[in-house]
Amino acid sequence: VKRKPFTPLHRCLFILCSVVAAGLSIGIGVLIGKNVRYNQELPNYQLDYNDKIRQMMFDEIQTTNIKKNLHELTVKPHEAGSHQDEVVLVDSIEKTWKSYLDKVEIYPYNVLLSYPNVTDPNYVGLLHPNGSVTMKTNFTEKPLVKNEDQPGVIPSFLAYTPSGDVSGNLFYVNYARVEDFEELLKLKVNFTGAICMARYGHIFRGDKVKNAEKFNCFGLVLFSDPYDYGGNGYPNSWWLPPSGFQRGSTQLDGDPLTPDYPALDLTHRIQESETNLAKIQAQPISYEQAYEYISKLGGAVAPEAWQGGMNVTYRLGGSFQHPHENCKAEIHTGNVNVLKKVHNVGTLRGGQDPDKYVIIGNHRDAWTYGGLDPSSGTAVVLEVARAIAALVRDGKWRPRRTLVFCNWGAEEHGLIGSTEWTEQLEKRLLLRAIAYINIDIAVQGSATLRASATPTLYSAIYNTTKVVPNPNIDEISQNRPTVFDTWLDKKARNINLPPIGNLGSGSDYTTFIQKCGVASVDLRYTFDERMSYPSYHSLHDTFDYMENFVDPEFKYSKAIAEVAADLMMKLSSLPVLPLSPNDYSAKLKSMFQKLQETSGEFLNANGIQLTNLKSTIDQFKEAAEALNSAAEKQNEESSDDEIRVINERLFEIDRGFLDFKGLPGQQWRHVIFAPASHNSYSASGFPGVTDAIYNLQHSTGTLDEVRQQLSVLALKILSAADLMKGF
Amino acid sequence: VKRKPFTPLHRCLFILCSVVAAGLSIGIGVLIGKNVRYNQELPNYQLDYNDKIRQMMFDEIQTTNIKKNLHELTVKPHEAGSHQDEVVLVDSIEKTWKSYLDKVEIYPYNVLLSYPNVTDPNYVGLLHPNGSVTMKTNFTEKPLVKNEDQPGVIPSFLAYTPSGDVSGNLFYVNYARVEDFEELLKLKVNFTGAICMARYGHIFRGDKVKNAEKFNCFGLVLFSDPYDYGGNGYPNSWWLPPSGFQRGSTQLDGDPLTPDYPALDLTHRIQESETNLAKIQAQPISYEQAYEYISKLGGAVAPEAWQGGMNVTYRLGGSFQHPHENCKAEIHTGNVNVLKKVHNVGTLRGGQDPDKYVIIGNHRDAWTYGGLDPSSGTAVVLEVARAIAALVRDGKWRPRRTLVFCNWGAEEHGLIGSTEWTEQLEKRLLLRAIAYINIDIAVQGSATLRASATPTLYSAIYNTTKVVPNPNIDEISQNRPTVFDTWLDKKARNINLPPIGNLGSGSDYTTFIQKCGVASVDLRYTFDERMSYPSYHSLHDTFDYMENFVDPEFKYSKAIAEVAADLMMKLSSLPVLPLSPNDYSAKLKSMFQKLQETSGEFLNANGIQLTNLKSTIDQFKEAAEALNSAAEKQNEESSDDEIRVINERLFEIDRGFLDFKGLPGQQWRHVIFAPASHNSYSASGFPGVTDAIYNLQHSTGTLDEVRQQLSVLALKILSAADLMKGF
Repeated sequence: VKRKPFTPLHRCLFILCSVVAAGLSIGIGVLIGKNVRYNQELPNYQLDYNDKIRQMMFDEIQTTNIKKNLHELTVKPHEAGSHQDEVVLVDSIEKTWKSYLDKVEIYPYNVLLSYPNVTDPNYVGLLHPNGSVTMKTNFTEKPLVKNEDQPGVIPSFLAYTPSGDVSGNLFYVNYARVEDFEELLKLKVNFTGAICMARYGHIFRGDKVKNAEKFNCFGLVLFSDPYDYGGNGYPNSWWLPPSGFQRGSTQLDGDPLTPDYPALDLTHRIQESETNLAKIQAQPISYEQAYEYISKLGGAVAPEAWQGGMNVTYRLGGSFQHPHENCKAEIHTGNVNVLKKVHNVGTLRGGQDPDKYVIIGNHRDAWTYGGLDPSSGTAVVLEVARAIAALVRDGKWRPRRTLVFCNWGAEEHGLIGSTEWTEQLEKRLLLRAIAYINIDIAVQGSATLRASATPTLYSAIYNTTKVVPNPNIDEISQNRPTVFDTWLDKKARNINLPPIGNLGSGSDYTTFIQKCGVASVDLRYTFDERMSYPSYHSLHDTFDYMENFVDPEFKYSKAIAEVAADLMMKLSSLPVLPLSPNDYSAKLKSMFQKLQETSGEFLNANGIQLTNLKSTIDQFKEAAEALNSAAEKQNEESSDDEIRVINERLFEIDRGFLDFKGLPGQQWRHVIFAPASHNSYSASGFPGVTDAIYNLQHSTGTLDEVRQQLSVLALKILSAADLMKGF
Repeated sequence: VKRKPFTPLHRCLFILCSVVAAGLSIGIGVLIGKNVRYNQELPNYQLDYNDKIRQMMFDEIQTTNIKKNLHELTVKPHEAGSHQDEVVLVDSIEKTWKSYLDKVEIYPYNVLLSYPNVTDPNYVGLLHPNGSVTMKTNFTEKPLVKNEDQPGVIPSFLAYTPSGDVSGNLFYVNYARVEDFEELLKLKVNFTGAICMARYGHIFRGDKVKNAEKFNCFGLVLFSDPYDYGGNGYPNSWWLPPSGFQRGSTQLDGDPLTPDYPALDLTHRIQESETNLAKIQAQPISYEQAYEYISKLGGAVAPEAWQGGMNVTYRLGGSFQHPHENCKAEIHTGNVNVLKKVHNVGTLRGGQDPDKYVIIGNHRDAWTYGGLDPSSGTAVVLEVARAIAALVRDGKWRPRRTLVFCNWGAEEHGLIGSTEWTEQLEKRLLLRAIAYINIDIAVQGSATLRASATPTLYSAIYNTTKVVPNPNIDEISQNRPTVFDTWLDKKARNINLPPIGNLGSGSDYTTFIQKCGVASVDLRYTFDERMSYPSYHSLHDTFDYMENFVDPEFKYSKAIAEVAADLMMKLSSLPVLPLSPNDYSAKLKSMFQKLQETSGEFLNANGIQLTNLKSTIDQFKEAAEALNSAAEKQNEESSDDEIRVINERLFEIDRGFLDFKGLPGQQWRHVIFAPASHNSYSASGFPGVTDAIYNLQHSTGTLDEVRQQLSVLALKILSAADLMKGF
């Protein structure tokens, strides 16, 4: 258990100049075969991908390059909309990719970004009866080491929360989860119209704000409790220092003004008042300043599980202790929403099948320096692109299908670059994309690989990790020679395979899987699956932080690069796509069993059987087995035509799970996995059904809605099964 | 001008037994290549399609077969849900297709069908102050020739209008179009709560009911005015006899209880109260009975243009003349909605590209005997399938792509069979269908071909009609040797090409184009493009009617069969798909010009320019030209890979125009063509935009909605352009 003593530090406030920076950008690089556009000349490509080519690729990927990339990317703060991100880095990546990829395109979008107002600092304060305000929290963080003091670090704010002043009694609400608020209601605590104070963790911060709104709070203060993030902090360790805080966005839906459509110049914008953006003031603070408030709170002692890592008894609040009993908490925010241009930058076009795409993407923008988030990923993707392009340049290999390298803008504000791009190219992706590989933070720890993916990719991921060398020499000597071995060792002593997570939201894979039904995987190296690293979204997420505490030799970065590159090369060049329908039916079966266990009795009691659902999963399984076995039977004698039929059926499977009407009240279309209703970071299995059951159990839904969602789920499973067949 | 004297005939009522018939059905036949499923053996196919093969096909198609087919199909009434349609004909077609197609599948659906209650006849009556009702209209039609008196002819009703009694003052409302009701409002006629009486024609009958509802009428009586349908009627001529009436449905959205989803057994049904079905009583009557009412109407004389073909002055009503001044009109309906099973029956699977589909479909169910509607089409499609299969059997030809023959059930009730099927196979169609060819009524006249289609198919249709011989020998001697020549001659003396209509709704192509973006064409031979034939949906739509008045030698039927077969064979076997993107850009340009002419000034005055739309059409044109020219450059030296890329870009174009959010308030997704808001039969160009402009002009919409729709239109044109390109 991470519980570190709390040390208050003095505050440091400075005025930031970044708000006037212009332009946002998203880039994609494309590696295209020699047979440009309509194939005037036959390509000089080598389709084979084998152990020898793989080894060449491993040899080509250099830790020194990744390190150099990261250093260059993190030299200055580069949040979305800043000159550093939208001009300097976009230009640099474009130039780099143009030097070795076949084609680079920039996709600019005009989107609504949210910023704090540097001339009107946000704060949380103690409002006295005479109207004076004391204990104002810091707008900025204190630089603790060299190079952290660059101008342009974005101050403390939560993107897309409104500006204004609000005051009220202060309550401590633990993590601001639905169950936390429900616990308070059970304890008969009346927090209507109050300011809530919650610690970061467990769920997406935007859901915390949404919960506070839903439970009629008028404001929310978020802090990084040392129990979850802190301790004897940076630069002594990788723990968050007392003065550090986590900024971030409260939405994950792309540009708020152009829902469902790309934010081109010609696109109509809805009014801000028509959006679903947060309606209450909210503000993040450091734990040294949270201490000032928590330590003064009155009210009952909070439940044991709510006690955090600061050296004080956490109380539920509602009032302050003497001599502050007549004070209230105030939140002042001066946040502004600004229309800005965002770019996406790059494409290796395939020889035989140039209109089938294997896509890799990573975001460029960072809240501060982006040492881990996301520049560790950008550094890796740049090296993957360079290494693959080098093999192509040297005539050693060329993909059969087109490789697309994407560099997203404005991810931190709400997956904006990737969302707008997938909205713009929706049909092309729906009809032609084979797979999407996402890397956000590439390395946040050295313990093990962590992967979340759609099931057709499971076996490709396992096979890849079984051939990528373990970056940890000690572990190799412990008879764990590959990434797979340690992954299995750390994660699942009692099962045969390490678990692969489900995709919810929180990074740029979201719209690929949730809107376009493209098989997707999210990859990173991590220390622990259940928390983010301490300096996440703080001033201290720097190159030094990476070098000192996370991946000093950049060998875990190289391992992630190798995993990603091997997946890309396999997916883009094996004649038969390495996608497994059988893994999907196994997954459906286990999800069904879980549903049966958790809700079967309840549904039964309400006259609902799961027999139809079971039967459709059986039908899916039958189609999957036929396709799987047909795929396995292919060999060098097989005709291109036959293989193509199999490949198209393989990559189309997830399209069958899309319901274009969307899940109830949501933009998401995938009926098997979706961002969980009460935590967008995690994935909900059978989301329509589980939400309907939840709503029924909480008296906010009807039996008919459960029946309807079970019907939609069964029909879409049949639809996916149908795509594995022909007439 | 068709204005025929009115001759009253006596009524004839009989009890019908068909309501208890069980089961509805839709069938599809599939012609599949020898390389079944996963291609265990290489197919013995001949891909070439050329003049020689075409001539063999022409020779194979026999008028005598079509005649025989029609006779067998029309021997008994066969409305949706009847034993004759859902058992006898489904079995017969399945057996026939199994004898020459590779695979036949039946797709059963449980759908809500609407019927009159034979034990509680529907009528319109004159309600006297003492409560007695006289002048009750006939429930059934009088058989006028032999073979019209089979049991099971469905009586007078409008499908999906509710049962019940309603009475009120009677008004004559011309065609019950929006402009007719608006004219009455201008004339200060107060018809709120009244019963309206309207003649058939100009717009879809369901829109007449919707209009009556919208303008607060409580009931609607529809009659076939002799001006539009009647005269010295059948059997003396093809005009509707005085006792004949037109039954029909009031909705075109497929099964009302399963919107957006296929009506499988496991599918959840919404409540009838949640549907959009008609809420007011409505009933169709013959013109001899309409005369009884129209001739007694009081009120002002109706406008000149409202005067119909009966020998009486049409008045606006509101009251009856003496001695009926205290009477009201009453509608009594006993219609019932019943859950029934509908089937679709058949597939020639292609050799090289078995997962690309060229589909032909026609409905099987008829309101009565189906002499023209639809069995003339079924007779043709059966012969097309037989003839193509014969070429395959004899080893003369085999398609490269899969041919799918569909036989739809329950079209008359609202396109139910095709809608449910496309909802079930939505993703397969979206991802893999090349084109859909629809034949409903194959022949309703001998003057000329009539075609409506999506633009990529224009040139294929023109080229096909230029090689199909003119079925009219006289015209050949007048130097019009082909179907094309007469089509051009009849339709467009001042232009180079005969006009091809836009696809709205009204037959089974609807969901293919409007929901799945599949290039579609609707074909028939006709006498006049602007009206339906007189016996439409009446008792007299029989084999005899066809043989005596429409196509005695079945040579026009053969011509339609040849047009359809040639299109299928070209689309399924030419290496490069005969689809023209340039025709689409020309169409967009002309639609833009029309929008500019009709609304440019109005929009300008409201601060809206069409420059963005223009620019996207230019971008579409550029992409279209590049793709068109790439397609034209292909030759025998071209690689299969290269041609495949071009083909996929060609057939995917219409997918780009789909907006999965749907047009505002509608289920339709295609932003270029959609069923017109006030007449589902006709197609609206740029429907989102034109509706938004209409709403703005009628103060029921906002400028912002116009801007939003212009934005969506422009974005989807860009999306379609995007599909013609790669990275």
